[in-house]
Amino acid sequence: MANLGEISVSAALNLLSAFAFLVAFAILRLQPINDRVYFPKWNRRGIRNSPRRSGVCVTRFVNLDWRTYIKFLNWMPAAFRMPELELIDHAGLDSVVYIRIYLLGLKVIGPLAVLAFLVLVPVNWTGETLEGVKNLAYNDIDKLSISNVPDGSKRFWVHIVMSYVFALWTFYVLYVEYKEVAAMRLRYLASENRRPDQFTVLVRNVPPDPDETVSEHIEHFFRVNHPDSYLTHQVVYNANKLAKLVQKKKSLQNWYTYYFNKYERTSKRPITRTGFGGVVGTKVDAIDYYSSEIQKLSEAEALEREKVLSDPKAIVRAAFVSFKSRWAAAVCAQTQLSHNPTIWLTEWAPEPRDVYWRNLAIPYFDLTIRRLLMAIALFFLIFFFMIPIAFVQSLANIEGIEKVFPFLTPLIETKSVRSFIQGFLPGIVLKIFLILLPTILMMMSKVEGFSSCSSLDRRSAGKYHLFLLINVFLGSIITGTAFQQLKTFLHQPPTEIPKTVGESIPMKATFFITYIMVDGWAGIAAEILRLVPLVIFHLKNMFLVKTEQDREEAMDPGCLNFATYEPKIQLYFLLGLVYSAVTPVLLPFVIIFFAFSYVVFRHQVINVYAQRYESGGSFWPDVHRRLLIGLLISQLLLMGLLSTKSVEKSTIALLPLPILTIWFHVYCKGRFQSAFVRFSLQDAMTKDTLERATEPNLNLRAYLKDAYVHPVFKGRIHFESPLLVPDEENNTLVLTRRSS
Amino acid sequence: MANLGEISVSAALNLLSAFAFLVAFAILRLQPINDRVYFPKWNRRGIRNSPRRSGVCVTRFVNLDWRTYIKFLNWMPAAFRMPELELIDHAGLDSVVYIRIYLLGLKVIGPLAVLAFLVLVPVNWTGETLEGVKNLAYNDIDKLSISNVPDGSKRFWVHIVMSYVFALWTFYVLYVEYKEVAAMRLRYLASENRRPDQFTVLVRNVPPDPDETVSEHIEHFFRVNHPDSYLTHQVVYNANKLAKLVQKKKSLQNWYTYYFNKYERTSKRPITRTGFGGVVGTKVDAIDYYSSEIQKLSEAEALEREKVLSDPKAIVRAAFVSFKSRWAAAVCAQTQLSHNPTIWLTEWAPEPRDVYWRNLAIPYFDLTIRRLLMAIALFFLIFFFMIPIAFVQSLANIEGIEKVFPFLTPLIETKSVRSFIQGFLPGIVLKIFLILLPTILMMMSKVEGFSSCSSLDRRSAGKYHLFLLINVFLGSIITGTAFQQLKTFLHQPPTEIPKTVGESIPMKATFFITYIMVDGWAGIAAEILRLVPLVIFHLKNMFLVKTEQDREEAMDPGCLNFATYEPKIQLYFLLGLVYSAVTPVLLPFVIIFFAFSYVVFRHQVINVYAQRYESGGSFWPDVHRRLLIGLLISQLLLMGLLSTKSVEKSTIALLPLPILTIWFHVYCKGRFQSAFVRFSLQDAMTKDTLERATEPNLNLRAYLKDAYVHPVFKGRIHFESPLLVPDEENNTLVLTRRSS
Repeated sequence: MANLGEISVSAALNLLSAFAFLVAFAILRLQPINDRVYFPKWNRRGIRNSPRRSGVCVTRFVNLDWRTYIKFLNWMPAAFRMPELELIDHAGLDSVVYIRIYLLGLKVIGPLAVLAFLVLVPVNWTGETLEGVKNLAYNDIDKLSISNVPDGSKRFWVHIVMSYVFALWTFYVLYVEYKEVAAMRLRYLASENRRPDQFTVLVRNVPPDPDETVSEHIEHFFRVNHPDSYLTHQVVYNANKLAKLVQKKKSLQNWYTYYFNKYERTSKRPITRTGFGGVVGTKVDAIDYYSSEIQKLSEAEALEREKVLSDPKAIVRAAFVSFKSRWAAAVCAQTQLSHNPTIWLTEWAPEPRDVYWRNLAIPYFDLTIRRLLMAIALFFLIFFFMIPIAFVQSLANIEGIEKVFPFLTPLIETKSVRSFIQGFLPGIVLKIFLILLPTILMMMSKVEGFSSCSSLDRRSAGKYHLFLLINVFLGSIITGTAFQQLKTFLHQPPTEIPKTVGESIPMKATFFITYIMVDGWAGIAAEILRLVPLVIFHLKNMFLVKTEQDREEAMDPGCLNFATYEPKIQLYFLLGLVYSAVTPVLLPFVIIFFAFSYVVFRHQVINVYAQRYESGGSFWPDVHRRLLIGLLISQLLLMGLLSTKSVEKSTIALLPLPILTIWFHVYCKGRFQSAFVRFSLQDAMTKDTLERATEPNLNLRAYLKDAYVHPVFKGRIHFESPLLVPDEENNTLVLTRRSS
Repeated sequence: MANLGEISVSAALNLLSAFAFLVAFAILRLQPINDRVYFPKWNRRGIRNSPRRSGVCVTRFVNLDWRTYIKFLNWMPAAFRMPELELIDHAGLDSVVYIRIYLLGLKVIGPLAVLAFLVLVPVNWTGETLEGVKNLAYNDIDKLSISNVPDGSKRFWVHIVMSYVFALWTFYVLYVEYKEVAAMRLRYLASENRRPDQFTVLVRNVPPDPDETVSEHIEHFFRVNHPDSYLTHQVVYNANKLAKLVQKKKSLQNWYTYYFNKYERTSKRPITRTGFGGVVGTKVDAIDYYSSEIQKLSEAEALEREKVLSDPKAIVRAAFVSFKSRWAAAVCAQTQLSHNPTIWLTEWAPEPRDVYWRNLAIPYFDLTIRRLLMAIALFFLIFFFMIPIAFVQSLANIEGIEKVFPFLTPLIETKSVRSFIQGFLPGIVLKIFLILLPTILMMMSKVEGFSSCSSLDRRSAGKYHLFLLINVFLGSIITGTAFQQLKTFLHQPPTEIPKTVGESIPMKATFFITYIMVDGWAGIAAEILRLVPLVIFHLKNMFLVKTEQDREEAMDPGCLNFATYEPKIQLYFLLGLVYSAVTPVLLPFVIIFFAFSYVVFRHQVINVYAQRYESGGSFWPDVHRRLLIGLLISQLLLMGLLSTKSVEKSTIALLPLPILTIWFHVYCKGRFQSAFVRFSLQDAMTKDTLERATEPNLNLRAYLKDAYVHPVFKGRIHFESPLLVPDEENNTLVLTRRSS
């Protein structure tokens, strides 16, 4: 176990690296050439236009004003300046609610830390158990933790009382926050402008009809069952193949532009090969080759486009049905149409950007099978992914390395290297594994058949949370190979599990402190530097960009990746809650993480991210639930820990806590959740009435006409989803024509 | 443990007692004087009118036709004669679906028994383990059970394969049955006549408004949010006190009638005392006393009635809101009105008879607290109720009795007494405890705040099922005091529990066979005899009945008590499923129970019961779910049992079974459940359209006017709920006037 000195080295290292990141960021962001990387949001709006052209040539790329460098942290106060209401306008409710999670972290863990340091740390410090035991290796952190209180001591009552105080405080903050977020969402929904999804319902599993086409069938059905309010509908085309063609053409166009630019620079016709990756196959003139390939693909695309639009089989059994009023749409989304609940399924339509087109046509039975299979797959993923992690981690301790590579012993034994290995390595090993994971989980969620990107994100977040909980949290506490652990748990009594885990909790405090620094602090610092987008942007800028619009497209502003970020926050919440009563020393590290993240993400939300969709903060019930799961776990583990300290009564005294937590969850769910899943008729009616008064002559049919057309059929529209990357049709034509 | 001989004695005893019940029933039912006890349903319809008046006086009371006695079982074929559709008309869908549960029992367990006897019994019989072990006490039943197969034998694969076959067969039957019941319900809803609840929604938690009365507030709110379809509403009065007065008056009237009849017979003014129960206090003339008491109460009642109707505070924050069409009511019941989900709660209105008036006014927060408290109370009830049961059971074995009452030893040791004690006593001890229980559970459900009698019944059934599962099933398998068991389970690994329970399953076969006979067979036989209603009817008939209408009221036809009966059926299902692969000898006993019950309940439904409400079979999802819980338990226990037989691979081979069961549950829930909780817009629209075509001039407002008036305010209406027993107002007046 690392001692306080090692922790300090590690903390210093991490702080230093974070500081380096920040300095790098401060310098890079001031260069006009990086404007599109660090301020893409403003660029896209045309507010912060590309580099000032007035100055000399150099200043277009490098900032020579030395005074700006002095205030290299002045982005921080700037991040706070925008008030919340303006921020909602600027970045959408999703982003605002998301950064509130970090603020919530401060609100929950902050007072917990203050209380813990005022009450628990003195109680622990004066426990003096560890000093009494001679042979035990302990460090200063342990002296501040619950381990320092002697077995059977009456001091544990302080911990019990404090854990009640902690729980009640957490309830209070969570309740207020849930209430506030729900109110924000309702205000947002009430104030937002007319949007197609307010009038539209996604209808799936339209039953086949021998006499009518899908479109006719839908129209007849709704004319009968919603006679007064049915307006129009938009069928869904199976355009997956077309989307693939479009994407392929886009990639070819990039190559074409690359070679064309090269040609313009060097005035020499570039050569490429026709085989894989341009490295095998026969040599050809690159520009001719790509322009002819693009030509071919354009023709295939046009053919496919024609085919999809004319072939009745290309219409899937789903549609977006629009109504004359929000009230009618709200009614249709919440009621059941047919007595067979597996056909005519209705749900609130996601906003057009949010639709995940590929999953709209899955029959009900397939869905249940897919979900079963994915649940089993998730189980195996979670429990067998542990094997490599545990294996690498077991290598990554000093003794392990010395055993496997005995020749490295002298090097490792030097003090600084030792600290480095102990401080960094276990965290980094985990980190590498975790980078791959979200993509896999997202793929699994897609297989499950959800029909909107936001629900895919939420679903993946749930899986990832489970993974982090079992593999990172539990897996780090109880060492040993993965499946073995599962086996141990199965063969242990249910009351033993919290004991086993709880007992080793205090001993793992230093590991988690390191983890918070490596994964949390450094991760956030890296987030603000945006190294990968920076490099990619400059590469693209160098090779592909011809027009101002190309340059705009070259920049991927990124977005808040809820599926990856939120479960991680939950891990820090969990650590904070678990250690609040056990080793309060860990709390400041968590608080720094939350505070730092809050500033960074507020900055990013203001200046960088472009959200792919807007769900109106509909993920909050998940955040709330997972936070309560964390609280529940912390309570069970505390019970387990205390029951190993020969204070049996304490377990009983703590018993009401988890029950209270579960009840609080049920209560909050009933009280607030519906604001996130349903749209009340009263609100819909209010909005309808208002609109009817202000715009009596609105032509809603024309407004909704093309709202839910598959993006590949759309004219000039920005579609930022990375899932289906369509291009701008007209653009393509211009380029192709130019090249021929 | 009882051996085969003892079982035979017990079976003979039970068969004999069942036979005696049947003979008694056959004789009693033929007496015209008992007509109202055994055929109340026909009486109430006026089809089978009171005793034939044409014959001599004696034949009005006793049947002297000897020929009818010969065919004393001829009610059995008669019970089958009515086709199902007619039965639905005659007795309602609830009853028909309920008796289908017994039929389902035959469909599930019957083929299981055939397969088990063809395949498993030979495999077990030739296992010959028990004969090899010298010192083990075993009996013939054990030789047919899985205990007879040697440890580690390959024969267990037969059991594994068969348990798959059993599970698949059960899935198939359950799926078909769920589908059929859902279709029956939909057909029933589609075909039934106009009923007030089709147009009505129960609105609860109406928020307070400073400027308007509750009634105005409701009207305004619905005129705004359902402008086209709102028709009318009926506020709910807090008439609990009034209902109590009415009930008290009813009891006084019974006493009055009793004394008046006595006076008429004896021509002597009867005397009573004013104190408790008429045994203490000063002597008074009974007729004068009761008539004056009734007078007083009538005045108080009139005053209270006036007060309730005029006092705005007597109106609770709930109402029955009616719409112009079924479509609009279906919309309102399924959608959320306010964005605050704790106010303006809407749900499908129960039919007027089904409303549980007292619970309509509970605020949302109170409800969550009440449910939390009741959940805790249920936990304690289930786990501490075991102490007395286990205590009495431990007394009720031979050795226990001999220890406590040594002087009884010679008596007990006689063979027949021994068989009697072992066969009867443990079952009866349980039985007495269980009789008290449903009332307690129903009270708990009422505290939980459900607003319809049908949901109260369903809810109580759920509690009772849990109780039977833990206390009767598990409690009988693992002996030892109650809380001790809970403790053992908490301190055992989760994989050990199925092992512990599974291991002792085969040994308990004989106990459960006895239980099935005592509780099942005899219980059903007693059900058809209706001894308690018979006695009460004749007592009332003797002392209270003056007019033909009084006589009609004197008869309580009873009803299918879902909350008590259904969980018991589930226990027999569970026994059948658990023992199907372990001790198939038990199955015929279960089958006899199901077959016998089916006949008896079909007879009772046709001739006796008057249902208190009609919910359209809405309890089926519960039945289905609990059956699958039983199947799941049987699979887990088989896994536990096999893993103690040194065949580890078997546990893994059985692992997919519970997963499949859970998936099947999820699938069926999604596929069918909504038919039981929601009413599809398509069906509502169809019915509306049809009605509009056939009755264009229907005055719906007049039709709905008094539908949802609290029963104490109603004119002449039969209200059979035992919860609030109001009287017929006019009647009362007649009586009172007559007495004065």
